[in-house]
Amino acid sequence: MPGTMKAAVVHTLGAPLVIEDVPVPEPGPHQILVKIAATGVCHTDLHAVKGDWPVKPSVPFIPGHEGVGMVAKAGREVRRVKEGDRVGVPWLHTACGYCPHCRTGWETLCGAQKNTGYSINGTFAGYTLADPDYVGRLPDTLDWGPAAPVLCAGVTVYKGLKETEVKPGEWVAISGIGGLGHMAVQYAKAMGMHVAAIDVHADKLALARQLGADIAIDARAADPAQALQAQLGGVHGVLVTAVSPKAFEQAFGALRPHGTMALVGLPPGSFAMPIFDTVLKRITVRGSIVGTRQDLEEALEFAGDGAVAAHFSWDRLENINAIFARMEQGGIDGRIVLQMD
Amino acid sequence: MPGTMKAAVVHTLGAPLVIEDVPVPEPGPHQILVKIAATGVCHTDLHAVKGDWPVKPSVPFIPGHEGVGMVAKAGREVRRVKEGDRVGVPWLHTACGYCPHCRTGWETLCGAQKNTGYSINGTFAGYTLADPDYVGRLPDTLDWGPAAPVLCAGVTVYKGLKETEVKPGEWVAISGIGGLGHMAVQYAKAMGMHVAAIDVHADKLALARQLGADIAIDARAADPAQALQAQLGGVHGVLVTAVSPKAFEQAFGALRPHGTMALVGLPPGSFAMPIFDTVLKRITVRGSIVGTRQDLEEALEFAGDGAVAAHFSWDRLENINAIFARMEQGGIDGRIVLQMD
Amino acid sequence: MPGTMKAAVVHTLGAPLVIEDVPVPEPGPHQILVKIAATGVCHTDLHAVKGDWPVKPSVPFIPGHEGVGMVAKAGREVRRVKEGDRVGVPWLHTACGYCPHCRTGWETLCGAQKNTGYSINGTFAGYTLADPDYVGRLPDTLDWGPAAPVLCAGVTVYKGLKETEVKPGEWVAISGIGGLGHMAVQYAKAMGMHVAAIDVHADKLALARQLGADIAIDARAADPAQALQAQLGGVHGVLVTAVSPKAFEQAFGALRPHGTMALVGLPPGSFAMPIFDTVLKRITVRGSIVGTRQDLEEALEFAGDGAVAAHFSWDRLENINAIFARMEQGGIDGRIVLQMD
Amino acid sequence: MPGTMKAAVVHTLGAPLVIEDVPVPEPGPHQILVKIAATGVCHTDLHAVKGDWPVKPSVPFIPGHEGVGMVAKAGREVRRVKEGDRVGVPWLHTACGYCPHCRTGWETLCGAQKNTGYSINGTFAGYTLADPDYVGRLPDTLDWGPAAPVLCAGVTVYKGLKETEVKPGEWVAISGIGGLGHMAVQYAKAMGMHVAAIDVHADKLALARQLGADIAIDARAADPAQALQAQLGGVHGVLVTAVSPKAFEQAFGALRPHGTMALVGLPPGSFAMPIFDTVLKRITVRGSIVGTRQDLEEALEFAGDGAVAAHFSWDRLENINAIFARMEQGGIDGRIVLQMD
Repeated sequence: MPGTMKAAVVHTLGAPLVIEDVPVPEPGPHQILVKIAATGVCHTDLHAVKGDWPVKPSVPFIPGHEGVGMVAKAGREVRRVKEGDRVGVPWLHTACGYCPHCRTGWETLCGAQKNTGYSINGTFAGYTLADPDYVGRLPDTLDWGPAAPVLCAGVTVYKGLKETEVKPGEWVAISGIGGLGHMAVQYAKAMGMHVAAIDVHADKLALARQLGADIAIDARAADPAQALQAQLGGVHGVLVTAVSPKAFEQAFGALRPHGTMALVGLPPGSFAMPIFDTVLKRITVRGSIVGTRQDLEEALEFAGDGAVAAHFSWDRLENINAIFARMEQGGIDGRIVLQMD
Repeated sequence: MPGTMKAAVVHTLGAPLVIEDVPVPEPGPHQILVKIAATGVCHTDLHAVKGDWPVKPSVPFIPGHEGVGMVAKAGREVRRVKEGDRVGVPWLHTACGYCPHCRTGWETLCGAQKNTGYSINGTFAGYTLADPDYVGRLPDTLDWGPAAPVLCAGVTVYKGLKETEVKPGEWVAISGIGGLGHMAVQYAKAMGMHVAAIDVHADKLALARQLGADIAIDARAADPAQALQAQLGGVHGVLVTAVSPKAFEQAFGALRPHGTMALVGLPPGSFAMPIFDTVLKRITVRGSIVGTRQDLEEALEFAGDGAVAAHFSWDRLENINAIFARMEQGGIDGRIVLQMD
Repeated sequence: MPGTMKAAVVHTLGAPLVIEDVPVPEPGPHQILVKIAATGVCHTDLHAVKGDWPVKPSVPFIPGHEGVGMVAKAGREVRRVKEGDRVGVPWLHTACGYCPHCRTGWETLCGAQKNTGYSINGTFAGYTLADPDYVGRLPDTLDWGPAAPVLCAGVTVYKGLKETEVKPGEWVAISGIGGLGHMAVQYAKAMGMHVAAIDVHADKLALARQLGADIAIDARAADPAQALQAQLGGVHGVLVTAVSPKAFEQAFGALRPHGTMALVGLPPGSFAMPIFDTVLKRITVRGSIVGTRQDLEEALEFAGDGAVAAHFSWDRLENINAIFARMEQGGIDGRIVLQMD
Repeated sequence: MPGTMKAAVVHTLGAPLVIEDVPVPEPGPHQILVKIAATGVCHTDLHAVKGDWPVKPSVPFIPGHEGVGMVAKAGREVRRVKEGDRVGVPWLHTACGYCPHCRTGWETLCGAQKNTGYSINGTFAGYTLADPDYVGRLPDTLDWGPAAPVLCAGVTVYKGLKETEVKPGEWVAISGIGGLGHMAVQYAKAMGMHVAAIDVHADKLALARQLGADIAIDARAADPAQALQAQLGGVHGVLVTAVSPKAFEQAFGALRPHGTMALVGLPPGSFAMPIFDTVLKRITVRGSIVGTRQDLEEALEFAGDGAVAAHFSWDRLENINAIFARMEQGGIDGRIVLQMD
């Protein structure tokens, strides 16, 4: 075990990250140290770096929360995992384990939770500390690269799809076929749903079709709400990964009576929910935040079974500022994964 | 059976109703004729009379959809009810019986439904036609007066409470203790919930307490959202019967993580749903429209058992225009029921 | 329209059926007449013919309840279907439409239901009467032959799988890969489940594997309960189509804690449910009877989409007694479908 | 803190317990030491003492798992509770916190669980060790005596009632109005259910009526299944606390179609579940084991609110062998609670 590791560190919110050598942390008795093999780059990391969310992280800190790698060292009281285990380090670093949310399998709502790469140093580093009860177990069949995006993008859309309450054989619309949406198409198909993909880019719609979408709608050419009402009488559920107000409005309009809209994106502001239609059609609108440990295990299993494969490009930690710059301009297709070793 | 009956007829949308004698209708082979003993007056009737909703009723028509009375005549193919049965005539006059919504016990969402006092002549009359498969059966223990408001106000809040998914022992907030809200307090208590009542009038809050509310909050004196977060950590669900944007906003803010807000009112416009909180707290917002036949039977049983009793004032059909004038100015406490015989 | 049709008639319970010419029935105002193109033969027909169930059919009658064909004539008040429509005639001929079960989408539990080929003449005939609100709509892509078995075998296992409450990505065991079980394997895969098939015949296990089963267990070679506990820690749900007491016991034993066992077969007698394990492992055992109209539409859509295809052999109405003889000796693989025109 | 405490110790399975002085245990860093104020005596303790269950406890051990008292000492890493807190020590001493059951709020099914008074020393002692994440928090309004029986009898029937899936306004039958059943009547009423109580003793039926049961049936005078079918068309759910095969059979027969039977008792052997009725009526039979931490908090809150109060008699630890002797002969009414300080 080396004494230092390379890491991308935020010293000032909004300023470029500094790639520097920092000490490898020592796991406490209940912690593990994970040697990061690969880590995805998520929009949330950009928010962390810029500090533009209501609750801000304290500098200095290391972002990153889609990390995968091997357990390098386990604290002396750790039983569940051991050195050499392949694990994934997710956004939910840890939670209290006892509050009403933790007690009922909703630890993602725990008020005492800590978040990787935000309130706790994250995965843009050679090593990171993790709570063995909150890491994901990687299936043997899943390589580092495709595993990383499951840790946040994958589990987030998988949980979001569950939250639409769409059943096998029913229709779900997926609005936005980017880093999240292209995984959502695959999860939805694996869950037996019929899929209508919505985007404004022809190449993303082509990707959606290739990944199994039954219908693909170009929202510049046609109003998706009208199109889906005309073709299907509306969809049973819709997962909104897009962040424009227009996308929200069209997603809502695509629902059939009794339909459910699940939101996983975090654009600023509010959604103008039309009351008359909401009541008369018994519409449900629901937020969904990442996924629980159980959701993560399931999301990883689907990926391990080959049912879901993230489209991603390899990149290097040294390029992190350039990557964020491209992300800010919407110039990233699919998912960027940093190769760490 | 007389040949004519007194009725309140809308000849021009927005104009005063005309009290006049019209022919008693003849039931078709699958219909029943109900002699109206009492009928409640609902805000929806006012919308019908003014014609201020997107889809307008065709004139002339008779409003009213909270009618109770005895079956005076049954069509020759009617088996389920017989002359002399005590029934209630609800908003849902009939539905197709076959579409996916009807098939799954959600006939209130049927696209082919007809609505009493809107697309079909209603209960502001000596008699009305009804579909025997869609009327409610009145418990023997329930008098005409208290029965009438159950047909719309009662079943609407009962269903809305179900849609909050609040379980016995959990907390529900009821925003607005008027004609709907004061019945909601009673249903919620009968369903084993803890109740926080919210209003801006001291007398309504006193009524709520008297009806069993565990907490009553004067929204002029304190922000209900802050108060309920401080006292309870937020409520599990909230039923919004109030119609002001501020009431909606405070109701949303009163929810704990994983909470559900059910809307039963129909104010114009939209609700500005805060996306960040919706996602991070996994909030659900859901519309709810009247109730199904099953909901209606259950709502009537609770009333028949004495668990719920509407507060209402008797009035006369002849005063209908004055009643609507008072309703428009918010001058009605509880529910008005017209004595018809 | 001919005046007579060929039919297989039961004149005496337990005696051979008589193939004879009988009058084509005339639909009442709310009924349709269906010209049968094909009809499956089900074990329930054998029970009807033998009259070995507690409530016996009245002779003479025509069995059969897996019929498909075109609407030949519609009663004068029928709106929902029209002449020429392709429909399926299921076990549930009609129900009351109003009782608590009908009101809540569980019309299969209606106490006033009538059953095709049992209390009402069935589909072993050139034509049959049907209730337009209770027939299934056949997808255009589905031929008569593969459509017929969906009407009973298909919808029964589809509903049974729903009743196991197994979610996409979880494991279901299917006990018995015969006429019902081989369709269950396909429905389960289309619903996103992992499937463990259990049978005692190598050819049926091979068929299960070919239809997508992830695991196939020969119950003569290994105890399926032990095997599935060892391999998977038990399954989340099990669908029992086999009828031997040993199959029931092994199915129960294959469940993991919190698991559910759904029964769709009707062997005589009772199942000895072990109380200690049921309580300590929170096991659920549940019966499931055919499927509702909604279930039937969904089951037909899966078949229309090509996700499920029954294995069947064509035969002729004239051979019905021989078919029943073979069925009684367990000599039928897959499903027999009678070609009627 | 004294160095020794009085305890009832099992040295030989099946032999009388020995009341002796043993050392007060020292809590580990994550444990708490609870000074027992009162502890209920449960049938499960009798099984532990006799060692007549498949998995036997290792001697010597101290039974008891319905203990309440104050935290006397907290390990150095304990944060959630502190000295002086009033807590309840339940059957579920601890669980792994990570397995699929623990992850989803079903820690009562954890394969690695430890059980108070069985695999871990229990509450028939002056002090006991507990896991702070698994103890119940006692409401201030709840005295030691009535609190103790909630820890096992109360939470068991409360959870069992949930597992019947009976909704407010529906009917539940409670079979057996003893130590468990008399609490079940109260929980069911607080949850808004209608209650039919079944027993063979007039005094227990009188108690049930006094506690709010709407119907009370003497199973010696009438078959409860027939009575409830005749009066109500059957009940929506039934909770079986009685342990005789006849009670099971009658409970099953009392269900209406779609009904659910929940089992919480642990008589030896199996229940002969009639297959024909189970399938045709879509009956669900389900085991239920104690309750989760969330169930326990809810069960305690109902008691703290005064909605549920156990009937119990005070006794002394010194009499424990006599108490077990009476229990074995069925001579105990309600619940025995040992006063410990």
